[in-house]
Amino acid sequence: MINEDYKAMLGGKSVIRELSEYATARGKEIGYENVFDYSLGNPSVPAPSAFTDAMVDLYEHGDPVAIHGYSPSLGIPSVKDAIAGNLNERFGMDYTGNHIFPTTGAAGALAHAMRAVTKPGDEIITFAPYFPEYQPYVNGTGAHLAIVPADTENFQINFEAFEAALNPNVMAVLINTPNNPSGAVYSAATLERLAGILRARQTEYGHDIFLISDEPYREIVFDGGEQAYPAKYYNNTLTCYSWSKSLSLPGERIGYVAVNPAATDADLLVPMMGQISRGTGHNCPPSSIQLGVSKVLGETADLSVYETNMNLLYDALTSIGFDVVRPGGTFYIFPKALEDDATAFCLKAKEHDLILVPSDSFGVPGYFRMAYCIDTEKVKRSIPALEKFAHEVYGVN
Amino acid sequence: MINEDYKAMLGGKSVIRELSEYATARGKEIGYENVFDYSLGNPSVPAPSAFTDAMVDLYEHGDPVAIHGYSPSLGIPSVKDAIAGNLNERFGMDYTGNHIFPTTGAAGALAHAMRAVTKPGDEIITFAPYFPEYQPYVNGTGAHLAIVPADTENFQINFEAFEAALNPNVMAVLINTPNNPSGAVYSAATLERLAGILRARQTEYGHDIFLISDEPYREIVFDGGEQAYPAKYYNNTLTCYSWSKSLSLPGERIGYVAVNPAATDADLLVPMMGQISRGTGHNCPPSSIQLGVSKVLGETADLSVYETNMNLLYDALTSIGFDVVRPGGTFYIFPKALEDDATAFCLKAKEHDLILVPSDSFGVPGYFRMAYCIDTEKVKRSIPALEKFAHEVYGVN
Repeated sequence: MINEDYKAMLGGKSVIRELSEYATARGKEIGYENVFDYSLGNPSVPAPSAFTDAMVDLYEHGDPVAIHGYSPSLGIPSVKDAIAGNLNERFGMDYTGNHIFPTTGAAGALAHAMRAVTKPGDEIITFAPYFPEYQPYVNGTGAHLAIVPADTENFQINFEAFEAALNPNVMAVLINTPNNPSGAVYSAATLERLAGILRARQTEYGHDIFLISDEPYREIVFDGGEQAYPAKYYNNTLTCYSWSKSLSLPGERIGYVAVNPAATDADLLVPMMGQISRGTGHNCPPSSIQLGVSKVLGETADLSVYETNMNLLYDALTSIGFDVVRPGGTFYIFPKALEDDATAFCLKAKEHDLILVPSDSFGVPGYFRMAYCIDTEKVKRSIPALEKFAHEVYGVN
Repeated sequence: MINEDYKAMLGGKSVIRELSEYATARGKEIGYENVFDYSLGNPSVPAPSAFTDAMVDLYEHGDPVAIHGYSPSLGIPSVKDAIAGNLNERFGMDYTGNHIFPTTGAAGALAHAMRAVTKPGDEIITFAPYFPEYQPYVNGTGAHLAIVPADTENFQINFEAFEAALNPNVMAVLINTPNNPSGAVYSAATLERLAGILRARQTEYGHDIFLISDEPYREIVFDGGEQAYPAKYYNNTLTCYSWSKSLSLPGERIGYVAVNPAATDADLLVPMMGQISRGTGHNCPPSSIQLGVSKVLGETADLSVYETNMNLLYDALTSIGFDVVRPGGTFYIFPKALEDDATAFCLKAKEHDLILVPSDSFGVPGYFRMAYCIDTEKVKRSIPALEKFAHEVYGVN
């Protein structure tokens, strides 16, 4: 018989998807070049040619039975070893291939990491603003997602609120840095302080608290900076990654969980994720794509366009008079709306063919997100539209 | 904190995987050509060149941003339309693209189909012998798997036992035809009778009972025969498919659920599966592979080797004196062991470097499975070893 719970979820469409669909439909009316569509976080630059070359080489010269054969249920050993080696080299870790669990993108990684270290009824804490899909991801595990209010000063962590939210039911803390939607890059100081609090609470509560670190934007950091590696700061860290952004492969669903070798039961966690897969129908990501990415671990797509776009938008928004924290990375910016009701604000912007996402679904009222993974030329053309909108609707000069 | 339930599952290794790993290790000692490894159902023939060509063409001439971009959450429309059209043409159905939900292989398809039509606590019935992974698949949904004993006469359905097993808690019935491990192909008469019983019980119980039909071996049918299409016989059918076997792409994790347009709430079921995905981290299968298979829907790998191997083995086993039902399809054969304890039998066979899988994990005692997706030359060489084993251990002449 049809499952009524899932049927009831049918109403709950993603605001972002809805706006993106509106933008596409509106584009058919007035030409998509005239719709300033800042809705969707879909990378706008091509995958690096090294990836294309690696895949064509696999298809043309590989043994099809081998490249399309079943992956072992914990991933292809050579791929796992290559990922471990790359992380060790970049971040001074000491992973082996056995600590790496390849997954179908970051969604798959988070699904496994959460199930491995929580049980139904447990609490997982995350920090606003947060990616709205965290809610269904956590719901699917049977755990409960608790939200710590935002540090709107600079979108690092509101530690006072975090300390107040912690309690013995919290088995995992979920962070996302560089952050969607704020563009914030958690600093070493933030990670240090977070780790210190978690260590103290582990002792106080007498159980492990895992840090689940969602890092698909790791390589998109501006001003020549780098994202400090969270697992470096805290032993019980499960690092969740996807090549969606760094290699511009969002549709290929390829990522991993990396279990810190210093974590409690580090050697059991990857085999446990293999067991979790059996119950969710996940299995491994495609063999050929595991092999393909393992050949280009040092590569990224040309990510410079995101920094160019960020600077254009940040300068324009600031000069128009928006209150906005300068993003340290990602391809998002998260300014304060010009009225308290972010949804009303974004509806009015829509009338000016500016497609902005209200902040409510990110767990913060009164802001909006712009995903500037679009052509720089369009960003430039959108600036007069932003000025006109702010002037005509809100009297900003 | 680490999840104790998944930790406890770590003991539960698949017998098949364990045997396969033994065969690999033994092969390192005596040469793999001397190990008659019938353990693993991993297709032995290459993917058709049409698939390779389609993928190389996509990589070389496609727009990387488009081919690697996010798939809509219910699948790529052109791919869904192509699959629907192909099924309609072959089986006289009237699917639209909206009835097709692309998944990461049959495991992903079953995970979604089961969740869509059962809730935790419900009962799902399947028939012995059955694929052992059905147990964790069903456990993962919270439903309960009930097993109907085998019809050992011809491995169709034991209808008497089925009728006795049905009860108002049964919300779904799971079939697998052509069948792993028996090689049986359910006949039109079997499907007709099954459908009749389900319709009667739906009326009696006052609720839908869905038929979940797992069909990855659909195209491997011998003697020029065809698998009757189960959805043709019963409206409430969810067809689960994978191209693992037909295109020899097991590692690429690509398949679908097809919802019979005549099913209850047919138009809701695919969108519901989209919601289910959000909770399991499944998301869509890789965009490029969705696009690739959609170009070769009329193709298969050269599957003829499986029929050649089946005939060689069936004749040899029969002439040695095994009690065996001739497979109608797949690349499995399921003879009766030469003693009641199938595990003891297979352990003795292992001493003769014959790697056979005992039937206990398939829900039938006293049989063994041979997966003959191996070179014909090796099948031929294994026959004297089978004869010698049966003679030396069981005195069969």
